[in-house]
Amino acid sequence: MTAAEHTAPQKTTAHAPGHAPRARVTVTLKNGVLDPQGKAIEGALASLGIAGIAGVRQGKVFDIALAGADPEHARALLGEACEKLLANTVIENYSIELLDA
Amino acid sequence: MTAAEHTAPQKTTAHAPGHAPRARVTVTLKNGVLDPQGKAIEGALASLGIAGIAGVRQGKVFDIALAGADPEHARALLGEACEKLLANTVIENYSIELLDA
Repeated sequence: MTAAEHTAPQKTTAHAPGHAPRARVTVTLKNGVLDPQGKAIEGALASLGIAGIAGVRQGKVFDIALAGADPEHARALLGEACEKLLANTVIENYSIELLDA
Repeated sequence: MTAAEHTAPQKTTAHAPGHAPRARVTVTLKNGVLDPQGKAIEGALASLGIAGIAGVRQGKVFDIALAGADPEHARALLGEACEKLLANTVIENYSIELLDA
């Protein structure tokens, strides 16, 4: 009975000590933008004998450790980071995924 | 009544014409491997005034269009592609995610 009382309040806090919230930002080229690097990988896979691949497009992924645990603030922060530095929004799309935040 | 008969068999086939199966391969550095590029991004974000970021690690993402629709074959194929070309398994981890396959 007392065990249930102990576990219930633990679950609601997002500020678990020693367990920083993380996020993954994925930046990919927009449709229609030429991707020579992807084309090169496609060619290399074919010459390695790996058939069955119709196309490759390369993007970037950023695994980010956050200092604060507020998801709303984190999303705004990461949006700003993408707009200012991580993505070139003329040719790239980005997506923000909050993990255990 | 006839509408239900029409939609039921459509759902089971993975070979929808004109809709190639896709996969996303994510390659990230293993824990403990130094990431100077991630560190540089961390520094750049701080100098842009974006506070609240405790760490950045950069990885790669490959969006792959597959020629065949068999998920088992695709997974084997992509595993081989990762081992041979896409990832350096000494310092990098990879994960394969099949989308609408």
